[in-house]
This record gives sequence, structure tokens and C-alpha cells, in this order.
Amino acid sequence: MSFVRPEIDAMAGYVPGEQPQAGKFIKLNTNENPYPPSPAVNRAIKERLDQGLERYPDPLATSFRMRAAEVLGVEPDWILCGNGSDDILTIATRAFVGPDQWLRLPTPSYVLYKTLAEIQGADSEEVAFNADWSLPEEFSAGSNQLRLAFLPNPNSPSGTIVPKAQIAAAADALPCPLLVDEAYVDFAEENCVDLVKQNDKILVSRTLSKSYGLAGLRFGYVVAQPHIIAQLMKVKDSYNCDALSIAGATAAIDDQQWLQTNRAKIIKTRKRMTDKMREIGFTVPDSQANFVWGTYPGKNLKALYEFLKQNRVLVRYMHYPNYEPGIRISVGGEDQIDACLMLIETALAQGIA
Amino acid sequence: MSFVRPEIDAMAGYVPGEQPQAGKFIKLNTNENPYPPSPAVNRAIKERLDQGLERYPDPLATSFRMRAAEVLGVEPDWILCGNGSDDILTIATRAFVGPDQWLRLPTPSYVLYKTLAEIQGADSEEVAFNADWSLPEEFSAGSNQLRLAFLPNPNSPSGTIVPKAQIAAAADALPCPLLVDEAYVDFAEENCVDLVKQNDKILVSRTLSKSYGLAGLRFGYVVAQPHIIAQLMKVKDSYNCDALSIAGATAAIDDQQWLQTNRAKIIKTRKRMTDKMREIGFTVPDSQANFVWGTYPGKNLKALYEFLKQNRVLVRYMHYPNYEPGIRISVGGEDQIDACLMLIETALAQGIA
Repeated sequence: MSFVRPEIDAMAGYVPGEQPQAGKFIKLNTNENPYPPSPAVNRAIKERLDQGLERYPDPLATSFRMRAAEVLGVEPDWILCGNGSDDILTIATRAFVGPDQWLRLPTPSYVLYKTLAEIQGADSEEVAFNADWSLPEEFSAGSNQLRLAFLPNPNSPSGTIVPKAQIAAAADALPCPLLVDEAYVDFAEENCVDLVKQNDKILVSRTLSKSYGLAGLRFGYVVAQPHIIAQLMKVKDSYNCDALSIAGATAAIDDQQWLQTNRAKIIKTRKRMTDKMREIGFTVPDSQANFVWGTYPGKNLKALYEFLKQNRVLVRYMHYPNYEPGIRISVGGEDQIDACLMLIETALAQGIA
Repeated sequence: MSFVRPEIDAMAGYVPGEQPQAGKFIKLNTNENPYPPSPAVNRAIKERLDQGLERYPDPLATSFRMRAAEVLGVEPDWILCGNGSDDILTIATRAFVGPDQWLRLPTPSYVLYKTLAEIQGADSEEVAFNADWSLPEEFSAGSNQLRLAFLPNPNSPSGTIVPKAQIAAAADALPCPLLVDEAYVDFAEENCVDLVKQNDKILVSRTLSKSYGLAGLRFGYVVAQPHIIAQLMKVKDSYNCDALSIAGATAAIDDQQWLQTNRAKIIKTRKRMTDKMREIGFTVPDSQANFVWGTYPGKNLKALYEFLKQNRVLVRYMHYPNYEPGIRISVGGEDQIDACLMLIETALAQGIA
């Protein structure tokens, strides 16, 4: 007997992207930043480390909230910090969605949303993106037991965005909070933080894993109106962010110059990847994230993924029902992308894919 | 409108012990270790930091599990790591206890257990410790909707333990898992890890916050049979432990010599505190933890707490219904304890308490 709740017993569990801990891979499968974080991060962490770790950290990560508030143009009590934005998504799901209630999410998208609903014993309602990755109107439809909607923007795997005006309208129409998961937004042209001020149903989550190059540190946050933050606070673990991550994250968000430089590099490489893949014959939607999504009807992309892996290049192969299978390639360093694109051309030339 | 589940809306939320982020306090209120962690921890963290933080951490904290398995005499798949042991307690509650089901806990004890039940929409059943801090038989009684029992051992605020044989018998009798919260066990004379091998209903949780001096790092773990670990794995966030904490925790548990030396210092100071407080007139149960619990019928211990705080010494004042109010004093450094005891004597001599 396992004693667990039947919902948990029935779950397969979320499987994160491969994280090989040994061996040398060009890792383009989990949308990490290829460049090291701002040097200010390491300095801040070392300084904090030298102050000792024997005391509990600040439960509210006040230093980060104060600096982030300035950057975002809100007050600190509009921000709640989490152990990565997965922690934020977990907190929001637990706060808003009870058993047998509904959580809405678009698909194809981040698979974790559904897992979070399963853990709660809640039901998830998947709304399929249109073929051009636009969001159908039905995403905004009301329903009695609907308690939360997740909208990743930019979306993964497509890298596409839903226009801000449509998000504002969706939030107005929805009977429940709308959490806009902006994990990739620093690579996009617009974001929804100012919508939070207009509508207390909008929450915006962010992570430092992608655009700040800090996936290893685990730090994310959510922006919402203070009365919403106060409720989410009850659900989070007291000391959910450790002392070193608070110090590192504060230094990271303080270095907006680093962010802009990094962003420009990623966007430049993204354009090169997109152009080249289209030239090879892939269909690639315009990406506003740090990855590109390529489909190629008639080609065997699973075999392509496996060929790349054999050659020590990890990308993500995804095949969602009713959608063309595709490969999602994170924007890596210039040399990494050269190697990846060359292998793809080889595979296609040799009929491997 | 807050949109949150009614259970969350009704909650007051758990309030952790005061963590002043500014000002100089002798901090004896949250059972932190007064001594810095093993120097190996800082070295390991700096080394890991220099390898870069842009990649996701190992979702399973394999390096820690392998080293901890050797120390504990189990296999690595008997261990699940968490972002502090609060994360472990959260994961266990979510895995085992659904809405309107019951979670059993002794009282007076760690207040968080009840909060975790509240967040799940579950009911908590409090079983009062006897006046001598022994655990009544009714803690083991069966009931249909009982899904999990927490037993902190040593307990807080008392510092007392429930004998291992009684825990083994309780687990046999209970219809549900029994999680023995061994946050303070490194300061005690026995622990329950070997019981896990005998009974898959027993889970043992640990933290590195207390005995390893790493409250700021957030690292804990649970020991349970592999089929239980596999279920808990589904509930945890994918990357719940960051790269630096995994490195630091692995170095910490590797340095068992440091642990033994630190433990001996704490136990020596604990004895001095206990003897002195009894001499002053307090009733102090024998503590097997890194704090002592003192009651003093007829004295105003709330006033004593406030006097200490005015004099920059933080302790914990606790008044549980049907129990004598008391103060819980963490075992600090020798000088810190000298200062605290002197202030207590002053307060009593001057009739402040």
C-alpha cells in the first residue's frame, strides 16, 4: 500500500527535461541561458555566504522585493517571491483551486499546469491554440467551477505571444484569476505588468531562470495586487527562498544593463536560427522567447532528435495530439547553434530525418 | 474579492519566529545553531558557484542522496530531498491528506502542522501530551478518515522525546503513515531511521537547519521506503533544491566529525542552561534538542520575554491552552547564554517577571 491520495496514486508525475549531470552535451533542451549571469550575482552570493548561513533567511525576501518594485514600477507589497516560478505556480494553484474545481490552460503548452491541477484533485480544461498559435475566444468563457486560468506568454513550445489587449479582455471576461506566466517575457516586445494595476484578477509570474541565467539558483516571483499577495503568502512555505538565492536574485535584477545586453545577444541568435531553419525547410513561427519551434511535415523529427542526441546535442522533441510534431531548440551560444544547425542539415541531407 | 478557496481565506497563516533583518540581537528564538557550519560547506558552495548557475540543478539532488545514504545506512532511493524540511512536511501532507480527511498531531507542538492541514482543507486532530510530556495511547487510535500523523521527536517546545519502542508500536497501530519529524534528533540519544526499514508506514524527516547550522540554506530530507518516496516525488516541485544548496548540503553531511564536535558543544551548554534555570526556580524538562523549555508558575514570563527583548535578547514566549506558559530558549554560544541567564536573574530579582 502506498497510502497516498488516489489522485496522486493515479498520476504519472511531471517529468522535467533531461538534465544530464555527467558528460558533455550541448544543452538546448530546457531553455536555459547559454551565458553566465551578471558577475554581480556571484559577488553578492559570496558576500552573503561569508556572513554565515546559520540564521534563517528573510521570509519575505525584502531586499529583492524592494529592488524589483523599482524596476517594475510597483510597490514591494505587490510582489511575492518563490523558489523558482514553479513554486509560484504551485502556490497559486493551491490558493485558488480546490478538488473537483477547474483550472483552465491552453495547449500545447507547459505540461506542468496540468500536473498541478492533478495534485490538487482538480480538473484541467485544455483550450487548444489555433493552428496559427492565436488564442481562441473560448479561453475567456465563464463556467461555474472555473477557479484559475494559466496563460504562458510567450508560450512554449511555440514562442508566440497573445497580444496584451486580448489578455486584458480575457481577464475581464473570466470569472476567476488569470495568471500570465511570463517566464520568457524578457525576450518579448511587451509584458503584462501594467495590466495588474488595472485588474486584480491578473497575476504575472516571472522567473530568473531564463533571462537572468539563473536556472540553478531557483528564484521566481509573482506580481499581483496586495490583497491577492496577502492570500498567496498564507500558502507559501515560510522560508521558501534561501539566503543565497535572495542575495543573488537581488543583484541580478539590479543589473538591468546586463539583462539588456544578454537579451540583445539572444534575440540576434534567435533571428539567425529562425532564418536558417526556414531556409532548410522548417516551418518556424516568429519567436518572442529564447527558443524556436520548428515543424517539418514529412520529415521524421523524432529521428532527428535522436541523431542530435547521439551527437551530444540535446533538443526537445514534442508531439502533441492534433499538432504537427516539432523540435524546440533553445537559443544557445553562437558556436552551439552552429553545431546544432550543421547536424540538422547533415541529418536531412543523409535522409536520417 | 480575493478569489481564493474559502479554507485559505479563513486562515490566519503561519507566522514564523521573529527574524530581525537589521539590528543586533542575541537570537535565541528559532533554534538556530550559534556556530557557523563546517568550513567544507562554504568551500563546496564557492566551487559550485564558480561552475556557473545558468543550468537547472539536478532534480533529485543525487550527490546528497548518495552521501546521506551512506551516513544513514540506507540506499539513495530511500531519500527525498526538500527545500528545508518544511517542504518535506508540505509534500507529505499534500500526498496523503485530502479535503475533509484528518491529520493527527500532538500538542503543544510545531504549529505549522495545523497550518498544512488547513491549506489542504483537511481537519487536524490534536492529541494533547500528558503533563510529563509523554504521549498518550490515544495518539495511536484508528479512525476512518485519518490519513497522516505527525510526531515531532524531539518535540518543541518541550525538547522531550517519545521512546522509540512507543513510536514503533504507534506506527503498527495507526491506519496511516506516521511522519516522525526529527528536526532536532542530532541532539538526542536515539533516532528512528532504522524503524523505516521495519515498517513502510514510518517516514522520518530531517533538516540541516539546526544541527548542521544551515538554516539559511534551506535543505531537508525524508527517509522512507522506496515505493513511498516514488509517490512523494510526484508532488514535489521538479527543481525544489537549488544547485548551491545541494552542493552545501552534500558537504555538510559529509563532515560527520564537525557534526559530532558541534553536537558536543551544544549538549554541554544545554546542560549548563538547564542546571542554572532549575537553580533559579524554573521547571525544565530534560531536553534532547538544542533548546530548553522553562515554566515558572506564579511568574510573569510574558513580561520576562519582553524585558529580554528590550535588552536585545530574543527568546520565544509560548502559552498553549491548558499548559503553563513558558519560555523556550535556543542553545546559543556560551557568551550569549551568559548574557541571557544574567538578564533573567535580573528580571526575577527586580520583580519584573
